[in-house]
Amino acid sequence: MVDFKKLSDCIDKKQKEFIERLRHAVEIPSVSAEADHRNDIFRMIDWTQHELESLGAKCEQIKNGKQEMPDGTVLDLPPVLFATLGNDKSKKTLCIYGHLDVQPAALSDGWDTDPFKLIEKDGKLFGRGSTDDKGPVMAWINAIQTLQEMKVEIPINIKFVLEGMEESGSVGLDDILIKHKDTFLSDVEFTCISDSYWLGKSKPCLAYGLRGLCYYCIEIAVCQQDLHSGVFGGTVHEGMSDLCWLMSQLIDADGTIKIEGINEQVAPVTDEEIELYKKIDFNIDDYRNDLKAHKLVSDDKVKILMNRWRFPSLSIHGIEGAFAGPGAKTVIPAKVIGKFSLRIVPNMEPKAVDKCVTDYLNKLWSQRKSPNQFKVYPTKGSRPWLADYKNPHYQAGAKAIETVFGTEPDYICEGGSIPVTLTFQELTQKNVMLLPIGACDDMAHSQNEKINITNYMDGTKVLAVYLMELGNCSS
Amino acid sequence: MVDFKKLSDCIDKKQKEFIERLRHAVEIPSVSAEADHRNDIFRMIDWTQHELESLGAKCEQIKNGKQEMPDGTVLDLPPVLFATLGNDKSKKTLCIYGHLDVQPAALSDGWDTDPFKLIEKDGKLFGRGSTDDKGPVMAWINAIQTLQEMKVEIPINIKFVLEGMEESGSVGLDDILIKHKDTFLSDVEFTCISDSYWLGKSKPCLAYGLRGLCYYCIEIAVCQQDLHSGVFGGTVHEGMSDLCWLMSQLIDADGTIKIEGINEQVAPVTDEEIELYKKIDFNIDDYRNDLKAHKLVSDDKVKILMNRWRFPSLSIHGIEGAFAGPGAKTVIPAKVIGKFSLRIVPNMEPKAVDKCVTDYLNKLWSQRKSPNQFKVYPTKGSRPWLADYKNPHYQAGAKAIETVFGTEPDYICEGGSIPVTLTFQELTQKNVMLLPIGACDDMAHSQNEKINITNYMDGTKVLAVYLMELGNCSS
Ligand SMILES: [Zn+2]
Ligand SMILES: [Zn+2]
Ligand SMILES: [Zn+2]
Ligand SMILES: [Zn+2]
Repeated sequence: MVDFKKLSDCIDKKQKEFIERLRHAVEIPSVSAEADHRNDIFRMIDWTQHELESLGAKCEQIKNGKQEMPDGTVLDLPPVLFATLGNDKSKKTLCIYGHLDVQPAALSDGWDTDPFKLIEKDGKLFGRGSTDDKGPVMAWINAIQTLQEMKVEIPINIKFVLEGMEESGSVGLDDILIKHKDTFLSDVEFTCISDSYWLGKSKPCLAYGLRGLCYYCIEIAVCQQDLHSGVFGGTVHEGMSDLCWLMSQLIDADGTIKIEGINEQVAPVTDEEIELYKKIDFNIDDYRNDLKAHKLVSDDKVKILMNRWRFPSLSIHGIEGAFAGPGAKTVIPAKVIGKFSLRIVPNMEPKAVDKCVTDYLNKLWSQRKSPNQFKVYPTKGSRPWLADYKNPHYQAGAKAIETVFGTEPDYICEGGSIPVTLTFQELTQKNVMLLPIGACDDMAHSQNEKINITNYMDGTKVLAVYLMELGNCSS
Repeated sequence: MVDFKKLSDCIDKKQKEFIERLRHAVEIPSVSAEADHRNDIFRMIDWTQHELESLGAKCEQIKNGKQEMPDGTVLDLPPVLFATLGNDKSKKTLCIYGHLDVQPAALSDGWDTDPFKLIEKDGKLFGRGSTDDKGPVMAWINAIQTLQEMKVEIPINIKFVLEGMEESGSVGLDDILIKHKDTFLSDVEFTCISDSYWLGKSKPCLAYGLRGLCYYCIEIAVCQQDLHSGVFGGTVHEGMSDLCWLMSQLIDADGTIKIEGINEQVAPVTDEEIELYKKIDFNIDDYRNDLKAHKLVSDDKVKILMNRWRFPSLSIHGIEGAFAGPGAKTVIPAKVIGKFSLRIVPNMEPKAVDKCVTDYLNKLWSQRKSPNQFKVYPTKGSRPWLADYKNPHYQAGAKAIETVFGTEPDYICEGGSIPVTLTFQELTQKNVMLLPIGACDDMAHSQNEKINITNYMDGTKVLAVYLMELGNCSS
């Protein structure tokens, strides 16, 4: 096993070089949502391939299809970058997933500095992608480079799957992974994803669960065209009135889901889980203050965390077809589409949830006795993901964290979905782990995204130790 | 009195010339909502001034102020055109209001022909402004021109108030009218506005009432920034849930307003009114079919017409701050603003309505026990307008219609508001009448706006006879 002190020193000495690497990555504005930047994604992938090849990796760009943009133009999808480092049959193989595209960003959105320059300030590195997900991808490269320069033998084979469309729905990725189930992915023993965040600002963690998502539309059609409320108000049954009533019946004032049959599908909470939740380092007042929310649904830490990860939640997102602008418009919308979704948890299955939701709304609708046309339908469903956090793979992650931070990680879940996690688990049938390196206040997807220099450097150390620990791992 | 047969023949002979006049007007794209066309409004006003001067009118362009557009650019507002024709102290003075600006229009919106060319097809004149409101303004000019060419003495003085911003909220008009209350408007005995439509396609009418409008916002603030439902769903009280519930309590499934104290403010319906409504030529099946509505709130003609004109109605227009686009977005909005309005009728006063609405919602909110921040406030209020349709002024309008069409007009109201109507009534303290010449299917504000050639020509005749009838009118 490599001496950690020596490893840590080597990494610290290279801080400037590692920051330059991230600077280079951030300066390529690889925004996947904007057609103008499509070429920058290709550039970002080429540049990353070059970095990986410098480590001796064998790279392959897997062609993806075409994408039709909302305005009708057709763009080439960026390829998925497959890289292989090491091909020793006696070693196990780790698959690392990351993404090279970023969310849109502009100074005019309220950034304090140019989002596509890496700005160092107060121990933080500001820039779009600094934490999501270019920082973690560069940290993997830093870790491997350091081990190589220390002439340490990495005890595993490493594969990378790096995509350029994550922030736009990972278009094409699942198809490519499915096609490579029996080739590139066939020998994968572990998958590790560093594309999430610590629960707080100081305590590292490992994540073993993600909620799934069931998204629904309720359509109410009144007539052919939008009507002027002055001319027609009082003569038609208005769709907004029906829709508001239906949506008011989804949850109680306290957030309890009123849809029959939903809560019954949730796996019972075990005592062991409660103990695990109790141990988690989480300050509920900080959480509320960060949100600037007036009050949370509970003051109890375990209840709030379980509400985020362990129980389903229902959110009403908005209405398509109604007036949504500023000011006053006196329209009676011809057709409105209410949108809401449920975050689902084990043992909920999207199909069973769909049935409860549509049955419930159909029943409400028949009570309403409105002459309007009504439709309710799911638009997408993804299952929750749950990994065995007692798997030796997690122990390797935990050991790496203990080595670097001197503390056990918290075992947490994420409330949102990272669909590729489930894809890797299902295709490899092996353990998948989420190993975040950024802090909870990194502002991914928001203005002034950053990664702390300490998180970037300690993250590089954790990843390096983790790679070494995997050698002792009998999954 | 002029011989109607002779007048009618004279007008018919000039059909080509009158259509050319309207063609010229339509070809000036005086769109008030679009900065690019601001200069066209000035051109349209200059051209109309020239037409009026050819009739011998004394014209004055009353300077209006500046307008800040949503993008921050500042535009000059077009002047209001005042014209005076005749100054005989022994005659009464009629004030005619009309507008020279139009709604936006483009081929790409779905027009079958260029909206800024007057296209004659199947007895219809298609073009933006053909019926709203260039057609009626040109019909006034046609009428006066014909009487002059027939060497008939017009028994009244005529004043015109023609504006260029009606389709953009009549910016500045009220101020200008108020300033001229004791000068230009001081001797006005009657005001006539031809800027609305028949109730159907064949029966002419006079309108004596307009509903007022009270518009409200309900604001619910949850936290500082929009939240991701995966990460935060289940921990905060969601604003959309509060808002949908509040808005579901505004009206019943059958459209009854649930806000306490509103229905009590409505003036009792008299037997005479019911008789007037019963006589109105209105086919409820045609109305429903034109809307392509699945069902109306009633199958009874009088009930439907009273719901449009004689009773208040409440419409929920939409929500600002929530997700309103196509597709699926998993946002928990930080702050949502629900928008709804009431159309109000005599004897409702905006202030009293505001109090009922805010009291009712405040009471609901205290029942809700939500920790979110709540606010309800009115954004605008306009009073209903009601004229005395037994006034001799209306008899002059009715006689003109009987002379041209051989039938009594229907006496109707409009459900929407034309705020300038109330301004004229309040400033002159004299009778105001709405005398439409276009048909209900003229598609003002929509694609393929038209006026039927018969409506344009018969309208010109009605206006000419009305001008003559006013001579016998002791208001
Ligand atoms: Zn990411
Ligand atoms: Zn992201
Ligand atoms: Zn108009
Ligand atoms: Zn109009």
